Amino acid sequence: MIYLDYAAATPLSKKAQQAMLPYFDEKFFNPSAAYLPATEVRREYEKAKGDIAHVIGAKAADLVMTSGATEANSLVFASIPDDAEILISAAEHPSVYENAKQKKFQTIDIDANGRVILDDLRKKITPATQLVSVCLVSSELGTIQPLSDIASIIAEERKRRAFASEQTPLYFHSDASQGLGLMEVKVARLGVDLLTINAAKVYGPKGIGALYVGHNVRLKPQTHGGGQELGLRSGTENVPATIAFAAAITEAEKHLAGERKRLNNLRAYFKKLLAEKIDGIEFLGKEKTQLVNFMPLTIPSLDAERLIFALEDRDVYLSTGAACAASKGEKSPTLRAIGLNDKQIAGSLRITLGQPTTKEDVEQAAQAIADVVANERKRLTNAG
Amino acid sequence: MIYLDYAAATPLSKKAQQAMLPYFDEKFFNPSAAYLPATEVRREYEKAKGDIAHVIGAKAADLVMTSGATEANSLVFASIPDDAEILISAAEHPSVYENAKQKKFQTIDIDANGRVILDDLRKKITPATQLVSVCLVSSELGTIQPLSDIASIIAEERKRRAFASEQTPLYFHSDASQGLGLMEVKVARLGVDLLTINAAKVYGPKGIGALYVGHNVRLKPQTHGGGQELGLRSGTENVPATIAFAAAITEAEKHLAGERKRLNNLRAYFKKLLAEKIDGIEFLGKEKTQLVNFMPLTIPSLDAERLIFALEDRDVYLSTGAACAASKGEKSPTLRAIGLNDKQIAGSLRITLGQPTTKEDVEQAAQAIADVVANERKRLTNAG
Repeated sequence: MIYLDYAAATPLSKKAQQAMLPYFDEKFFNPSAAYLPATEVRREYEKAKGDIAHVIGAKAADLVMTSGATEANSLVFASIPDDAEILISAAEHPSVYENAKQKKFQTIDIDANGRVILDDLRKKITPATQLVSVCLVSSELGTIQPLSDIASIIAEERKRRAFASEQTPLYFHSDASQGLGLMEVKVARLGVDLLTINAAKVYGPKGIGALYVGHNVRLKPQTHGGGQELGLRSGTENVPATIAFAAAITEAEKHLAGERKRLNNLRAYFKKLLAEKIDGIEFLGKEKTQLVNFMPLTIPSLDAERLIFALEDRDVYLSTGAACAASKGEKSPTLRAIGLNDKQIAGSLRITLGQPTTKEDVEQAAQAIADVVANERKRLTNAG
Repeated sequence: MIYLDYAAATPLSKKAQQAMLPYFDEKFFNPSAAYLPATEVRREYEKAKGDIAHVIGAKAADLVMTSGATEANSLVFASIPDDAEILISAAEHPSVYENAKQKKFQTIDIDANGRVILDDLRKKITPATQLVSVCLVSSELGTIQPLSDIASIIAEERKRRAFASEQTPLYFHSDASQGLGLMEVKVARLGVDLLTINAAKVYGPKGIGALYVGHNVRLKPQTHGGGQELGLRSGTENVPATIAFAAAITEAEKHLAGERKRLNNLRAYFKKLLAEKIDGIEFLGKEKTQLVNFMPLTIPSLDAERLIFALEDRDVYLSTGAACAASKGEKSPTLRAIGLNDKQIAGSLRITLGQPTTKEDVEQAAQAIADVVANERKRLTNAG
């Protein structure tokens, strides 16, 4: 089986699984209980939060643990008043886009490679803007967004407001679900006030994520109860998942440089093989500003879904785009926004590599893709 | 080690752990992806939801999976308009009480055993009431609430509204976190429109719960994104935790009758031993309307927290009340509401038995409690 959809889900790393298992039985205590075994669990939970925070250059107390990226993103958007203006990029995941739709928002245009156009942001930011939300890496194209440049524009607007004695707050949020574990992510360097991270994309378990919350930010909690996570997210802490998240991300960080190099070489080889075998194939995005494991492409005029089902018979699994958008059968707004035509969108595939991907996987997958494309082209010729 | 705080947290059952593990690695796929291994995971996820729903007499499509009881309760309260009236019992967990505090609410009085006084509900329900939320079992006293009687009162009010052509909806919600797995819980029989359930109290994992949503209910989603859970709770499904929840609750249901009998006998024996050994001990609540594993008690004038720390040295772990309230060092509003005086509240302990509790545990724990009480009384006499 050759799985090439690591942007949709990653298996749990062995180390993360080992770290987590004791917390299901011997250490199952409620971390809010007063007795020693429970307070030990509390301490280990806080340490795990600290380990996760460390990776993004923050402290345990800066993180609100959530059930995943969608909850973290929703917490951000729910905290913005209904009459405030929000700016998001035109390449956001549904968990940002659908949240923005609940409010007053505009999209910032992206260029042909999927990158936010900074001048468009400058044009659209107004005295009423209270939130700018741009992903670290777009989930369809793998485009790395110029977050620190965006932060500079936001800093300028803040300075203007301070000078004009305007009280309206302005927060910069980024969903870093894609990117974490495969590139350096430091909140200070990126200049974000709010950062969403997610275990399920970095070989941690599903059902756990976190929101980094800068010191200047005021959030409106969406859950109320025991007052956990500094009152911002009540509910008994998901201790095992948090322990596993910490183990997974710590491990990924340790191998970051080597894994980046390996994936970059693997991707180059994969592209070379596909370009040799398939006429008319087009790779999307620009490598210089693309996450190392992303290889979005299109074979114009073909039907990507037919290709995916044909590849399934050869035990090769990949996607037409973000799993969430794909499941609803909607055409990707991101691909539209970068100026692809209908034929290019119809034939677009998202290949994403992962830790387990080998050179042999790439060779077999390239051959399988070439074969199903050839078959499909033959079928279309015969039909036409 | 003798753990007697099963109302705060339960260890994961072996069967649940076994059922869950494959979904961390071989079956880690995103259930929203289009390829076969992912659609198989989707099917197994839906089957697990069906198994959980079956236990409460519902269908998979009636459940919104959440990260736990607090999120489920918060989803209910967030869906009620700010100007609507809400009634909750005076014996609710913070995850109901703190949510109610965000809105317009009143509490329904409880009697000396912690049971809702139906006449008080009749008196307080008005044409503006849109939500009545009463737990199935109170988390401090273990009191089983008369939900079907409450449902009848609500049905009368609905009938009145229908006759008067009033459009105001009226929902009946219950948090069944305590109770599920230890008593029969069927939504139709209880007469609820909304029911919160939670894996972490029934030998399932932390971080997963569900809200049963009756067909007549309209909820306002708190998270937005991929449209999972019928659009009511976006975010990638926590597949392993849901599988484990289903396995745990199915197992508990299978042994329900036997386990109830066993715990009931164990509790009677425990009470007998404690009554023999400790002068002035008072058991709270009335067994007839108390969950079988609950044994709340008070030793008036003693300091429960001192007892708990002394018991820790003897490897016996129990609680002063709900873990969430306890961690904040607040005196319990429930104990106040049933009419306990300060000395009774100060000396109150919550003992809750569980699947692993044995007769030997009970004997050792009874002796340990008697010893620390005797020591504490000696200390106080010497000090005084």
